[in-house]
Amino acid sequence: MRIVDIIERKRDGQQLSTEEIQFVIDGVTTASIPDYQISALLMAIYFQGMNERERADLTMAMVRSGDQIDLSEIKGIKVDKHSTGGVGDTTTLVLGPLVASVGVPVAKMSGRGLGHTGGTIDKLESIDGFHVEIDNRQFIQLVNENKLAVIGQSGNLTPADKKLYALRDVTATVNSIPLIASSIMSKKIAAGADAIVLDVKTGAGAFMKTLEDSRELAKAMVKIGNNVRRKTMAIISDMSQPLGYAIGNALEVKEAIDTLKGEGPEDLTELCLILGSHMVVLSEKADNLNEARSLLEQAMKDGSALQTLKTFLQAQGGDSSIVDYPEKLPQAKYKIEIPALGDGYVSSMMADHIGTAAMWLGAGRATKDSVIDLAVGLHLNKKIGDQVKKGDSLVTIYSNQEDIKQVKEKLYQSITISKEKPPVPTLIYEEITE
Amino acid sequence: MRIVDIIERKRDGQQLSTEEIQFVIDGVTTASIPDYQISALLMAIYFQGMNERERADLTMAMVRSGDQIDLSEIKGIKVDKHSTGGVGDTTTLVLGPLVASVGVPVAKMSGRGLGHTGGTIDKLESIDGFHVEIDNRQFIQLVNENKLAVIGQSGNLTPADKKLYALRDVTATVNSIPLIASSIMSKKIAAGADAIVLDVKTGAGAFMKTLEDSRELAKAMVKIGNNVRRKTMAIISDMSQPLGYAIGNALEVKEAIDTLKGEGPEDLTELCLILGSHMVVLSEKADNLNEARSLLEQAMKDGSALQTLKTFLQAQGGDSSIVDYPEKLPQAKYKIEIPALGDGYVSSMMADHIGTAAMWLGAGRATKDSVIDLAVGLHLNKKIGDQVKKGDSLVTIYSNQEDIKQVKEKLYQSITISKEKPPVPTLIYEEITE
Repeated sequence: MRIVDIIERKRDGQQLSTEEIQFVIDGVTTASIPDYQISALLMAIYFQGMNERERADLTMAMVRSGDQIDLSEIKGIKVDKHSTGGVGDTTTLVLGPLVASVGVPVAKMSGRGLGHTGGTIDKLESIDGFHVEIDNRQFIQLVNENKLAVIGQSGNLTPADKKLYALRDVTATVNSIPLIASSIMSKKIAAGADAIVLDVKTGAGAFMKTLEDSRELAKAMVKIGNNVRRKTMAIISDMSQPLGYAIGNALEVKEAIDTLKGEGPEDLTELCLILGSHMVVLSEKADNLNEARSLLEQAMKDGSALQTLKTFLQAQGGDSSIVDYPEKLPQAKYKIEIPALGDGYVSSMMADHIGTAAMWLGAGRATKDSVIDLAVGLHLNKKIGDQVKKGDSLVTIYSNQEDIKQVKEKLYQSITISKEKPPVPTLIYEEITE
Repeated sequence: MRIVDIIERKRDGQQLSTEEIQFVIDGVTTASIPDYQISALLMAIYFQGMNERERADLTMAMVRSGDQIDLSEIKGIKVDKHSTGGVGDTTTLVLGPLVASVGVPVAKMSGRGLGHTGGTIDKLESIDGFHVEIDNRQFIQLVNENKLAVIGQSGNLTPADKKLYALRDVTATVNSIPLIASSIMSKKIAAGADAIVLDVKTGAGAFMKTLEDSRELAKAMVKIGNNVRRKTMAIISDMSQPLGYAIGNALEVKEAIDTLKGEGPEDLTELCLILGSHMVVLSEKADNLNEARSLLEQAMKDGSALQTLKTFLQAQGGDSSIVDYPEKLPQAKYKIEIPALGDGYVSSMMADHIGTAAMWLGAGRATKDSVIDLAVGLHLNKKIGDQVKKGDSLVTIYSNQEDIKQVKEKLYQSITISKEKPPVPTLIYEEITE
């Protein structure tokens, strides 16, 4: 088999065989195929696409390129959730304890990553003493005992995907549905998921800006999952404005606690109940979505969701008293209000720009080596459709630096006030099950 | 300027600016842009193409990437000829002396190259004593004195093109009209041509198999030439069967001598007269093609073409007596006839396969380090349309090895005899001047 022939076949719109795809991924993993041939192939895939069978083959070849987490000792059906990323997305912090509290085993492998705010691990580390440095045996034991544990990402999970992603990033081949879909799915499958619930974001703050693109990505991932025998479904949810009110690490922990109490932002609560219901059904802890939703609402009401969070934090060394005393979380030095400059209605909040403002405060990493400030971030006091009067605070800035001129400007640029009341954005656009 | 943005713009079908193309070629030349980004860009160009302006910019950026030969001290308009390569193409050996004999200055820079037979230099080196190791001053002086000289290729001519070609070869991006056209044109322009006559081959033995593709390539090159102010025209000529009778280095020298005497194969003679007439007109040594053709026919008839060859060979150390005693050229040990197996008409001669048979005998290089056997090759005794009787020799093999079973088989596979008389292939399909 010669890589140049494989590139040529894909260039000409032909399907690659299972063996050819395995040959390519082996060559990426062992670096026996030079990057310049892989990048030419990636660009050919960008133009010619991949069919369903090729996508499934690519996914599984990447799964096999490194470690595969064995969760078979955990009782029950392990359902993982993945979000394609947005701004102020606190769903993971809420969903873990929420679905665990009704018996769904949540064995979460998480990373730090780049972005507007930290990853799930960064957020959890804003809780004094909490750590994810546990071994696999402990991890499995904790999930069996408490239904919830979080472990740091294995260094050798889907190494072929890591290499391909690094190459795509510098060769303008990121934006390819088959490549995005197989990248995401390979990581979930290698991490041991039996079933997968996907939250594909759409809108200005999301990777996929249009509903059409988001739908295509969602369908691609659901097909891959079902083709490789992992029950998979996706919802498409709005990211035209940030989700919830909090953007920042400790601020999002606080918001997650509120939400688990049933006192969280309406949009975040609703999205968590919908995603959670699907997880409960896929895990066979309820027969249908209505039953699942009732279980979750009950867990919020009766305090069992909150109790699961406490038990989980304690088990991994965290100070669980922050659940009752959230003021123990890292606090920023300065709290600055951003007043509305006129009367009207909030008609747009550009989620990606607001996220960037939070990153400038220090809430997220611009590069791998950036240090995160867990205390800082933004709290939105208004969202799209809300009425505002001149002087009302639109956003509260939590900062450890006094000079926030740039952040302020960015926020004013990101939020539009109009005379007319705009329609409130739809939260959930679609559910995709096949 | 960032290369990843340039790749993305081309991927999305946008035009690259003159500055962007210069940036890419600078990055290729200095190796400051990694190969994996260049190969992704090449694949994007494969799919999205380049417009006329981009092609001209790419050509000139490659010209500037290395040495540019200054032929300004040579009197007259320097016209170069380029053939896109075929089998048994002896035109360069004929055309040099032929057009020089009517006053067109021919300052030929030539290479060795890979292929079925050697390059022009290899062929000339089958003449005892002939060498191309002359310096630029000598080269210019010889052209001014004799109107014809040949020098070896400068090591640093269009280095960006060399690197791009090497990358295209292993990334399935060779077959792109804008890339092929700018590659060829950049070499001709860097070598100092004022005007260029292109011989684009079409058919089984050519790089471009269909008339449509050949026309597209010819038009692309003519446009580039005229856009960068080098008068350029192209003819599209047949390569469904080999040109002339001889395929091999010394054999082609002998055939060139015959042709200069007016005793060569009909197709080779006609093609040389047509290409030569265009060269004479572009060099302003005749007012029109008819006048140019008369001059060339006269030079064949009165011996001045042959005399120009002799003077040229002598001036570069060659034994010019081979012109009158071609038996002094390297001779093969074995001469083997390939008899027709039945009666009928030759209906096809697959030029590329016949070329491969010649290469197997040792007439050409399969790899850069192969050693050429100047004496060996093939002489076609029949061509398409010729009547044959069982036992007639189709081809004479000139070999230095006794075992030629493989070559023989290849030749039988390449030549079809049919009962019906087939049409004789058209020699010249089109002339393209803009």
